[in-house]
Amino acid sequence: MIRKLTLILSIALFFGCNSNTETQTEKSSMKEEMKTTQTPAEYTLVIHGGAGTIKKENLTPEKEAGIKEAIEAALTKGESILKSGGTSIDAVEATIMILENSPHFNAGKGAVFTNEGKNEMDASFMDGNTQNSGAVAGVTNIKNPIRAARAVLEKSDHVMLAREGAENFAKEQGIETVDPAYFYTEHRWESLQKAKKKGLGSVISEDPIDYKFGTVGCAALDKHGNLAAGTSTGGMTNKKYARIGDSPIIGAGTYANNNTCAISSTGHGEYFIRYVVAYDISAMMEYGGKDFQTAANYVVKEKLKAAGGSGGIIGVDKYGNVAMPFNTAGMYRGYVKPGERVIKFYEE
Amino acid sequence: MIRKLTLILSIALFFGCNSNTETQTEKSSMKEEMKTTQTPAEYTLVIHGGAGTIKKENLTPEKEAGIKEAIEAALTKGESILKSGGTSIDAVEATIMILENSPHFNAGKGAVFTNEGKNEMDASFMDGNTQNSGAVAGVTNIKNPIRAARAVLEKSDHVMLAREGAENFAKEQGIETVDPAYFYTEHRWESLQKAKKKGLGSVISEDPIDYKFGTVGCAALDKHGNLAAGTSTGGMTNKKYARIGDSPIIGAGTYANNNTCAISSTGHGEYFIRYVVAYDISAMMEYGGKDFQTAANYVVKEKLKAAGGSGGIIGVDKYGNVAMPFNTAGMYRGYVKPGERVIKFYEE
Repeated sequence: MIRKLTLILSIALFFGCNSNTETQTEKSSMKEEMKTTQTPAEYTLVIHGGAGTIKKENLTPEKEAGIKEAIEAALTKGESILKSGGTSIDAVEATIMILENSPHFNAGKGAVFTNEGKNEMDASFMDGNTQNSGAVAGVTNIKNPIRAARAVLEKSDHVMLAREGAENFAKEQGIETVDPAYFYTEHRWESLQKAKKKGLGSVISEDPIDYKFGTVGCAALDKHGNLAAGTSTGGMTNKKYARIGDSPIIGAGTYANNNTCAISSTGHGEYFIRYVVAYDISAMMEYGGKDFQTAANYVVKEKLKAAGGSGGIIGVDKYGNVAMPFNTAGMYRGYVKPGERVIKFYEE
Repeated sequence: MIRKLTLILSIALFFGCNSNTETQTEKSSMKEEMKTTQTPAEYTLVIHGGAGTIKKENLTPEKEAGIKEAIEAALTKGESILKSGGTSIDAVEATIMILENSPHFNAGKGAVFTNEGKNEMDASFMDGNTQNSGAVAGVTNIKNPIRAARAVLEKSDHVMLAREGAENFAKEQGIETVDPAYFYTEHRWESLQKAKKKGLGSVISEDPIDYKFGTVGCAALDKHGNLAAGTSTGGMTNKKYARIGDSPIIGAGTYANNNTCAISSTGHGEYFIRYVVAYDISAMMEYGGKDFQTAANYVVKEKLKAAGGSGGIIGVDKYGNVAMPFNTAGMYRGYVKPGERVIKFYEE
C-alpha cells in the first residue's frame, strides 16, 4: 500500500515537474476528460471471441446463432457476478470459461490443432489493482487454461509457466485436468488436414469460416473500481516448434492497470508482441494524455495496421468506457454495463 | 518501406493534432534535446552481466578479474564489428556469445540449474529498424541461445518458440548444439544443492557472490543508425514448473526501436514482465517526451523500485546516449563508443 502510494506520488511529481505549459495542457486535458469520463459506469464487462475475415456470408445461420448464444451466456454470467458486487477477476474468469467450454471458439474445447495433431493452449490473466499477473503457455490437458493462468497469478511467485511445468503446477493447485482427447472437434481436425494438404505453413486457418485467429478474452471493471483482463487461445492451426503467441504475454495479449484500462487482444500474435499492443494503449493514455478510445483506435487501426498486423482488442477504462477496435473484416465482440448490452460481429 | 513511412506520418499527424501548446512544448523539448543528443555518437555498444548484491567484499580478486576480462573481451569484439561498419545485430550477437561462453555469467556456459538439475535457457533479440523480434524459452542443448533467438527473428514467421520446439527449429537452422553436460559448472551445481538444502524455493541464489540474477545483455547503435538489443539467461537457480522470466519477453527483457532506444533488462523477471520495463522506457520517451536517461532512471529507480522489483537495464538511444540504471547494490556493466570505454561493477 505504502509502495503504491509512493509510486503514485512519484509519478505525479515526475510528470508535474515538467509542466511549465500548465494552463494550456490543463485546458486540453479537461477536454479529454469531458470526452471520455461521462458518468463512471457502476460496472462494465467486455468480451471478444476472435477477429478475422468474419463476414455474414461466411457464417451459416446455425453457426451464427451458436456463437451469439455463447456470447450472450458469457455476458450474462459476467454481469451477474459484477452486479452482485463480485470482483472483476471472478467475472473475467467465469466469462472466459464459458467461451472456453464452447466449441465455437479457438480456446479450450474447440482449440485448433498443431502440426503434430495436438491442442496446445495459452492463457494469461492480469489484476489491474495489484499488477499481479499469471500465464500458461502450451498446456494440453487443462480443461480451462484461464483458471491455470489465474492460479499462477494468485498462488505462485512467477508470472509465466510453460508446458509440462505449467500442467504440473495446475495439477498441484487442484485445477481440473482432462484427457487431451476432450479438446478434439471435427471441424478443427479437418482444418488441420486441409492446411497440411495445401502445404500451408503455420496458419490461422485456410477456411474463411474458421479464419478468426481464435482467442477469446474479457476485460472488466467491478463495483470496487478494480480492473482485470484475461485471454485464452488455442493458437494457430498447424503451428510448429512450440510457438508462443501474444495471448500469454503480459503487455501484448493482456494488460490491466487500475490507473488506465484493462485489455485483451486477438489477432496475428507476432505483431501484437512486437508492438506490445495492450500496454502501448495504456502507455499512450498515461504518458500521452490520450483517452482510452482514442488510444485504442490509434494503436489498432493506424499503428498496427500500418505495420501489417491484423486483429483487434477489447477493453474497458477505469471509468467504464468501452473500446472494441479491430482492423479485420469482423470481430466477435460484446459488452454489458447497467442497462446496456451490445453484441456485434461485423464491421460497422 | 511504404508501411513504415505511413506509420511515421500517422504518428506525426496524431501527435501533431494535439499541439495547441506548440511554442511552450517546443521550448521544453528543445531543452530535452540539448540535454541528451549532444553530438550523435558514430556507434555505441553497451552490455550487462547481471545485477544484484554485487559488492567488492563479496568478490575474490580472481573472480573480479575473470569477470572484468570477459567484459573487456565482449566490448572489444562488439566495438570491432561496429567500427568497421558492421550491423548492430551482428555486434549484439557476437558480444553476447562471448558472455554466454564465459562461465562467469548466468547464461550459456555458467547457466544456473533448475530444481530438476537441468540448465534451461532463455534468450531474445530485437531489431530496432524493422521491429522484427525472436526469442527462445527453455532450451537445453543450444550452445549459444542468442544465436537461436536471432534465427527466430530472421528465419521464422514467429517471435517466440519454446523448449523442444525451439531446439528443433534451431537444429534445422544449423545452429550449434551441445550435450547438455556442456553447461555444467561446479559452482552452479553447488548453488542448487545449497538452495535445496535450505529449502529455498526458486531463488536467484543464496550465495551473495552468485546473487546476481544472472542474465547477460547487449544493446548497440551502428554507423547506419540502426539499433538492436539482445538478452540471454539461465533463469533462476532451483526454478520449477518451466518458469519463463522476462529475458525472452519482447517489451519486458528486450526492446529496440530506431525511433527511441534499445534496451536489455536484468533482474527479478516477474516484475519486469508486469511493468513491461523495456518498452515502458521507450513509451515514456515517445509519448511523454522524456529523454532516454531520464526515462530509464525513472522506470528503474522510482517505478520499479517502489513496486519492489530489483534489477537494472542497460541501453542506448538513437543518438548513442547510454543509460545503465539499477536499483541493486551493483550491476556488471560497460559501454564503448569512439574514444570512450567504461566498465563498472558497483554503485557510484
